Amino acid sequence: MTGERLPLSDYEAIVNLALAEDIGPGDVTTRACIPVEKRAVARLVAKSDHVLCGIEVAKTIFNKLDPECTFSVGRADGESIPAGETLLVVSGNAAALLMAERTALNFLQRLSGTATLARQFVAATAGTKARILDTRKTTPGLRILQKYAVRCGGAFNHRAGLFDGVLIKENHIRAAGGIAKAIAACRANCHHLIAVEVEVATLDELDEALAAGAMIVLLDNFPPQQAAQAAARVNGRVKLEVSGGVTLENVRAYAEAGVDLISIGRLTHSAPAADISMLFDREIWG
Amino acid sequence: MTGERLPLSDYEAIVNLALAEDIGPGDVTTRACIPVEKRAVARLVAKSDHVLCGIEVAKTIFNKLDPECTFSVGRADGESIPAGETLLVVSGNAAALLMAERTALNFLQRLSGTATLARQFVAATAGTKARILDTRKTTPGLRILQKYAVRCGGAFNHRAGLFDGVLIKENHIRAAGGIAKAIAACRANCHHLIAVEVEVATLDELDEALAAGAMIVLLDNFPPQQAAQAAARVNGRVKLEVSGGVTLENVRAYAEAGVDLISIGRLTHSAPAADISMLFDREIWG
Amino acid sequence: MTGERLPLSDYEAIVNLALAEDIGPGDVTTRACIPVEKRAVARLVAKSDHVLCGIEVAKTIFNKLDPECTFSVGRADGESIPAGETLLVVSGNAAALLMAERTALNFLQRLSGTATLARQFVAATAGTKARILDTRKTTPGLRILQKYAVRCGGAFNHRAGLFDGVLIKENHIRAAGGIAKAIAACRANCHHLIAVEVEVATLDELDEALAAGAMIVLLDNFPPQQAAQAAARVNGRVKLEVSGGVTLENVRAYAEAGVDLISIGRLTHSAPAADISMLFDREIWG
Amino acid sequence: MTGERLPLSDYEAIVNLALAEDIGPGDVTTRACIPVEKRAVARLVAKSDHVLCGIEVAKTIFNKLDPECTFSVGRADGESIPAGETLLVVSGNAAALLMAERTALNFLQRLSGTATLARQFVAATAGTKARILDTRKTTPGLRILQKYAVRCGGAFNHRAGLFDGVLIKENHIRAAGGIAKAIAACRANCHHLIAVEVEVATLDELDEALAAGAMIVLLDNFPPQQAAQAAARVNGRVKLEVSGGVTLENVRAYAEAGVDLISIGRLTHSAPAADISMLFDREIWG
Amino acid sequence: MTGERLPLSDYEAIVNLALAEDIGPGDVTTRACIPVEKRAVARLVAKSDHVLCGIEVAKTIFNKLDPECTFSVGRADGESIPAGETLLVVSGNAAALLMAERTALNFLQRLSGTATLARQFVAATAGTKARILDTRKTTPGLRILQKYAVRCGGAFNHRAGLFDGVLIKENHIRAAGGIAKAIAACRANCHHLIAVEVEVATLDELDEALAAGAMIVLLDNFPPQQAAQAAARVNGRVKLEVSGGVTLENVRAYAEAGVDLISIGRLTHSAPAADISMLFDREIWG
Amino acid sequence: MTGERLPLSDYEAIVNLALAEDIGPGDVTTRACIPVEKRAVARLVAKSDHVLCGIEVAKTIFNKLDPECTFSVGRADGESIPAGETLLVVSGNAAALLMAERTALNFLQRLSGTATLARQFVAATAGTKARILDTRKTTPGLRILQKYAVRCGGAFNHRAGLFDGVLIKENHIRAAGGIAKAIAACRANCHHLIAVEVEVATLDELDEALAAGAMIVLLDNFPPQQAAQAAARVNGRVKLEVSGGVTLENVRAYAEAGVDLISIGRLTHSAPAADISMLFDREIWG
Repeated sequence: MTGERLPLSDYEAIVNLALAEDIGPGDVTTRACIPVEKRAVARLVAKSDHVLCGIEVAKTIFNKLDPECTFSVGRADGESIPAGETLLVVSGNAAALLMAERTALNFLQRLSGTATLARQFVAATAGTKARILDTRKTTPGLRILQKYAVRCGGAFNHRAGLFDGVLIKENHIRAAGGIAKAIAACRANCHHLIAVEVEVATLDELDEALAAGAMIVLLDNFPPQQAAQAAARVNGRVKLEVSGGVTLENVRAYAEAGVDLISIGRLTHSAPAADISMLFDREIWG
Repeated sequence: MTGERLPLSDYEAIVNLALAEDIGPGDVTTRACIPVEKRAVARLVAKSDHVLCGIEVAKTIFNKLDPECTFSVGRADGESIPAGETLLVVSGNAAALLMAERTALNFLQRLSGTATLARQFVAATAGTKARILDTRKTTPGLRILQKYAVRCGGAFNHRAGLFDGVLIKENHIRAAGGIAKAIAACRANCHHLIAVEVEVATLDELDEALAAGAMIVLLDNFPPQQAAQAAARVNGRVKLEVSGGVTLENVRAYAEAGVDLISIGRLTHSAPAADISMLFDREIWG
Repeated sequence: MTGERLPLSDYEAIVNLALAEDIGPGDVTTRACIPVEKRAVARLVAKSDHVLCGIEVAKTIFNKLDPECTFSVGRADGESIPAGETLLVVSGNAAALLMAERTALNFLQRLSGTATLARQFVAATAGTKARILDTRKTTPGLRILQKYAVRCGGAFNHRAGLFDGVLIKENHIRAAGGIAKAIAACRANCHHLIAVEVEVATLDELDEALAAGAMIVLLDNFPPQQAAQAAARVNGRVKLEVSGGVTLENVRAYAEAGVDLISIGRLTHSAPAADISMLFDREIWG
Repeated sequence: MTGERLPLSDYEAIVNLALAEDIGPGDVTTRACIPVEKRAVARLVAKSDHVLCGIEVAKTIFNKLDPECTFSVGRADGESIPAGETLLVVSGNAAALLMAERTALNFLQRLSGTATLARQFVAATAGTKARILDTRKTTPGLRILQKYAVRCGGAFNHRAGLFDGVLIKENHIRAAGGIAKAIAACRANCHHLIAVEVEVATLDELDEALAAGAMIVLLDNFPPQQAAQAAARVNGRVKLEVSGGVTLENVRAYAEAGVDLISIGRLTHSAPAADISMLFDREIWG
Repeated sequence: MTGERLPLSDYEAIVNLALAEDIGPGDVTTRACIPVEKRAVARLVAKSDHVLCGIEVAKTIFNKLDPECTFSVGRADGESIPAGETLLVVSGNAAALLMAERTALNFLQRLSGTATLARQFVAATAGTKARILDTRKTTPGLRILQKYAVRCGGAFNHRAGLFDGVLIKENHIRAAGGIAKAIAACRANCHHLIAVEVEVATLDELDEALAAGAMIVLLDNFPPQQAAQAAARVNGRVKLEVSGGVTLENVRAYAEAGVDLISIGRLTHSAPAADISMLFDREIWG
Repeated sequence: MTGERLPLSDYEAIVNLALAEDIGPGDVTTRACIPVEKRAVARLVAKSDHVLCGIEVAKTIFNKLDPECTFSVGRADGESIPAGETLLVVSGNAAALLMAERTALNFLQRLSGTATLARQFVAATAGTKARILDTRKTTPGLRILQKYAVRCGGAFNHRAGLFDGVLIKENHIRAAGGIAKAIAACRANCHHLIAVEVEVATLDELDEALAAGAMIVLLDNFPPQQAAQAAARVNGRVKLEVSGGVTLENVRAYAEAGVDLISIGRLTHSAPAADISMLFDREIWG
């Protein structure tokens, strides 16, 4: 995760939606009390240690409110930021900065929260072969940004959506009439660049999935010991993913059980927001 | 919070965005292995105790994938749901239900998470005059839905955005040249149905705000004891809001300090998702 | 109204709609007969005395057709312009200017018409405490621009829409089961920065509204004398607004009756358009 | 104008824009004080004599807020409505009707205003061959609806925009290098279903346009007597249009001068709004 | 067709749609293996002889992916390009160029294919008075661009859509109750800048159309000899268009039959794509 | 390809774009000469043998113009239709059917053209193991529909876009610094459900790709004999795809050379449109 740059088109729609819902027909406080030509210098400052994510999104937001604003200091996405440090300094129209503030922070705080939690899981499994993955349990509208935040934290992505990978789950198996039928149908009909993964709930289902030609198997809600049994039984023939109930406390046990992939919903559905605030520089206003 | 109904136009854009990012050019698993005319009955089931929120949003999502699906059992937003209970039964095209599943759950889990946390704060302050409020620290794109979730939890909303209430904060005061100037400008320029609230960081600033004609005062990061001092000093002349650092542990202390309003960012920025899943009924598939 | 600047996002949608409906798949006259590289200098000229409004909107329109056009002379929104004066000089691609002309004028003429009428009402009430207000009787799609035009004319805005102020009208009262119930419900449920106004049709209803805790009362279609009675009865306890049947002829009578606010639908629904035209400079083409 | 029906796609964008700007994140009055299941019957009533236009638009708006509302009485677009008559009765959810009211009226009042003024001009020229036309001086976003309103009033449309007819004006002539060049270029390059009209300011220019092959000539700001001279000189060889300065007082003089077409900007830029209001039926609420 | 420039607004929607469907949530190959700051110089090269069309569209696409890319060599739309020649050299971010490549080529190849075929038809009718026209059989979403490509090939456009010309076809005649009724209704109701064309299937219908006042007649699926008979019978009183079954082999026979207009669906529905590819310059990468 | 059903959301945007560009501000012919309440029965009829594709798209289009139209006969996508057969009978408002006709046919003709050509390639390779694939050389805006048409013809899809499969091409290799580096980077960074394909131009590059861990290899512009050599050398270790210069004449030679996948750009960039027309039933109108 060094130097990746998300194109604007990946997040412009959600940024516009967010600005519209916050500003609506106008910021009445700012319009009433801030002189229209007033300029300001604002600093975004970390109030808790975190892994930064969203700095380009924040710049986009400031630019939408003041196309002529400038950025004189900036930390990069993926950097570890200690509390108290400045993330970004922005100079521009004071009213514009005030109108952009909350929306920029709302993105930065959530994305940095996810990046921070991802890095904690990565650190907890250091030295093992296991990759930490996200899931599709993302926040509506933020899928691409959250998956980017996961990468900023040093973890990896699972598929982007229903369209770029086959994952046969319990409900598919029921509707298709069994594991073997489901796997065969996917191998026959999906394009040749897409691999087939199957979710299993027991070791017997694992055997069934292997027999039916699964390329990757997802162990659903297996405790670490059972995951180790599965890894032993598979012995490298297919990749193994675990999902369900993984915490910072037990993640290393899973990694040491020998699985290849550990996917964690809470990276995107319940990561606490990082604490970041924006301050107008006093010296500018004196 | 009885019987309120959110119009579709309030959330259709974010639902469409969420479906697009999950389904994209098609669900390859479902297309490959689910017969196109197959029908199914699915149940959304609570896996943890929570206050329900988002049931109409979920129905909307199922309807978008299968306009002829039907709902035969349904709990209402705002109800307390114990783990194990069924929230909604939906019958329809099997492929459509599978494609809608994750997006419906992503909304339900987050909104119910916020409603649940809101109710906990309300319960913690029962019997006091204090209202629990949300903030503008909402998830991008979900402002209206999250504010609705807060109401489902029995709490109240702060302003919807920058456009429907004046809240003069530290940065405004600096840019405007002082509290008195900022308040006077807002009272002169804003329409007559909008009240003026001012954020203060000390008791001295509180005095200054009162003198300048603030109608409501926000005590920023006051510990409970200091909030009590403020309440005593104000003695009912204006409404008092506290914000910053409020937790389930200390919220009652704030309420008993005599403030009128307690606003809590974590209701919308860090509420853990409720655990809800969707199951295809076995008897249907036998 | 000095120096306020409306952000582009407040009006870009309606500008795009207007350009699309006028230009559609192309200006066949211009494409047929204007050389593609031809440049021109055009002047927007007042053909009647008016208060200018919309100059930034016009610039936006010219810029959309020719991103490299330049503006060498420009009057500001809110200025009084005598007939014959130049409002704006624009240099750029001749075809682009021709394609932008009608749409730019359509905005300018309507907005200046509203600003002009607003200023006439303001002038007619000079020296009284009454504020001239607009209403929600705005032209579909032009709400924000028309409310800005009202401010350019020196008048004030009423609420922006249904979302930023409570105004309880006759139909609400019937549906809610009476004035007292309606007021109590609004005070209980609306956020603390929103005030409650009630419309009344008689002096008795005024008494009822006062008793029920209305903060502002709208006197609907009261003649000036009756408005004066209401003002005497209220004696400053609440703000009084009059609406309905206000003309340039009788507005001063209302203002002198002692009301605080006079709202006038015709500012936005029936203001005659200002007369403005665009001329290509002869010397440029010689 | 009997029975024409405008497709929804012709006006849905502007209806959505209008509803969004009025309702925004919600109608706080209605949400606070109207029970969610309350039903009502509302009547739209003419408060001034007018030619009706926009009844389908109004129905669309009520339907958007309450897809199950029903309409039990309705007058048709193009009908003359005396003050006091009911235009439409709508039954549905009370909150929905209240939220739709202002937007529905804003369309109805403006469109009926234009239809009414159009019919007055048509009546003033009864018995002559002259057609009353609109212009491109329409309200941004309302082009299609206003042109429909003109037809409802019994008048005719000029071209819909820059794309469906050639009208060579003074600025084109200057940029193209003369009338003859401009006409020749348009005849050579435009498709064979589009006719070429030229604007002239003097009788000499009229001669020049005729010599250059204009199919229709627009007499710009000719007084009636001069228009009659032009008509005599042309003697039916081309169609003649007059534009500029036409009023209800002088329109018959133009018609009797022998011109074919009289185009009138004020039909769409300055027609006063018709007075229409919505009432909840008292008996329903008793 | 020298120097015409299509405004961006005429094709931006389809460009955005095309980029979205190709790039979706990201180019996984490029993201994985191209260093984010890597720059490249790419050349678009003709691999078959063709008439170029779409060079500005291609530039727009590269600019959307890299707003700072530059173009150092460029051929113009409408030029004949021999195989092997460079059409455009673009320098910019390597990842951006790779992501834009396919979409840019997809536009260029199709539009150049249409321009090339159009020029072949024009060449085949050189020296006759007949104009080669397109039809409404265009590719969904590409109407404006394809009609521009037809002009780039030296041919002419028919009407842009249903809105800018009357063409009465068999189905209209049936629904209207006969040719005469249909023509009369169109002449009475359409604006004065729109001419009326009628499609006929036999010489008898041609007579009927002439008698009823058609201004242009479309001979539907007439073989060349019959078209010549029609031309003789009409003898210049109206314009004649032929359509249906026209090929490069028989088009000259139609032109020499004396018709004015020859419209050809395959220009836009079946023109083979031109062969164009993009190469990264080797010397840049050594 | 039996019974697959494309969700409306997959093509609604391009349908709306196509209707807008054809109908614009209104069908002037239909409005002028078709009575507004007139009903009609129309038949879509094959005028050439083809494989049908797009019947649901066509229904969508008729429904958009007349939400109450009904369909009484219908053939299914994927069926082989001989010339002369009826594809669909639609009953509804006559004006609506006329306005929908061209757009419906434009989709049907193109999609059926692609399905027809796909089936010809499939037939030409019957009995071999080779799959016929499409490419990303699709028509802008029609990607999903064209890929569906390919499936209707019995062929298979390649990846949907840049996001659901890795295909390392010459330009990537140059920018990445060689085949081995590019493959390694993709295997390390892409998610575990995505396979890595590499394009090679020579047998030496094939060896290099195999050594570097390619999972699938694309032979670019290999003649059939050279493809056979490649297949022999690979001997089943990886899948082989050929692309470039494949025609109906030589496709069987490629299939018999032993490759697994044959991708063909002309399926989507140059398939001739199928000939389909719409007729109003005479007996209905008598």
